[in-house]
Amino acid sequence: MSFDPSQCVGDCPFCTISTTFAATPPSAPIAFNADLVSPAAFVVLSTPLVMAFLDIMPLSPGHLLVTTRAHHEKVSDVTEEEARELGYWLPVLSRTLAKATGVWDWNIVQNNGAAAAQVVPHVHFHIIPRPALTPELRNKSFTMFGRGQRTDLDEEEAAELVEKLRQELARETGKPKI
Amino acid sequence: MSFDPSQCVGDCPFCTISTTFAATPPSAPIAFNADLVSPAAFVVLSTPLVMAFLDIMPLSPGHLLVTTRAHHEKVSDVTEEEARELGYWLPVLSRTLAKATGVWDWNIVQNNGAAAAQVVPHVHFHIIPRPALTPELRNKSFTMFGRGQRTDLDEEEAAELVEKLRQELARETGKPKI
Repeated sequence: MSFDPSQCVGDCPFCTISTTFAATPPSAPIAFNADLVSPAAFVVLSTPLVMAFLDIMPLSPGHLLVTTRAHHEKVSDVTEEEARELGYWLPVLSRTLAKATGVWDWNIVQNNGAAAAQVVPHVHFHIIPRPALTPELRNKSFTMFGRGQRTDLDEEEAAELVEKLRQELARETGKPKI
Repeated sequence: MSFDPSQCVGDCPFCTISTTFAATPPSAPIAFNADLVSPAAFVVLSTPLVMAFLDIMPLSPGHLLVTTRAHHEKVSDVTEEEARELGYWLPVLSRTLAKATGVWDWNIVQNNGAAAAQVVPHVHFHIIPRPALTPELRNKSFTMFGRGQRTDLDEEEAAELVEKLRQELARETGKPKI
């Protein structure tokens, strides 16, 4: 099944990204121009069905979003083909992110609906690196998934990180399959 | 690739479940015997690669775990085939759970490593229904993913719910594919 741009939602920020950035092979680490959209989008992966880019309000450095290119509100709305593709990319992007950041503990979180804290109504998985707890962090109240404060993405740092992530992803996807 | 029981980990509670419950077609809502293992396991899905059962310390009624049958610690360790299967089942089980509970807001959470609050070191996704916020809940401090307290699973309620879930799953998997 191919992507149908007519199904995009005009005021959806993720649809803006998906209609702006064409699909390119992940094994070729070409640079996307982050400033093609506003706010800037630091795109790591752009395939016919699935995209990944940095969260603009990261909970930790490397906080990544993984979405379907097509607009669906909840994970229950994706097609079977998209579901399998999302499933395929979550481990690949997890390894990519861990190798690029050096952080090997992380949460994957996917929120559906307002009561579940979904903000952008276009299905997406968060991959959130969790650096080892420092004594300072240990003293803060610890909740199962919610540790950390969101901050605005530093665009200079993001540009460097996304370059590293694309190179790592190219290595990751160029390997023989397991 | 078929399941190799020799790769199971003796003291892993999820390996105990996966070696006890044989694969059965999800479209046939047969009853599993929860008491074959201790603590009791309320199994909703048992396929050659993927299993789903109720969390024994649910954050909300219906809190479901989705795992690979084979033992892997983190999501980065699963095979490509398992990754695609996990991806396939997350939306199907989300719809099943929403229909059975009537709650259409939910979180999917998958923790990797101690700093990310992983407790059982056998890869698993949580699907956590989020009933609409009551005035009482609104007054409590709200964290992005961590709302709610874990309680022990009520086995009588679990037996009823899992029966409903299996019937819903049979309907869900018997439908024409999208």
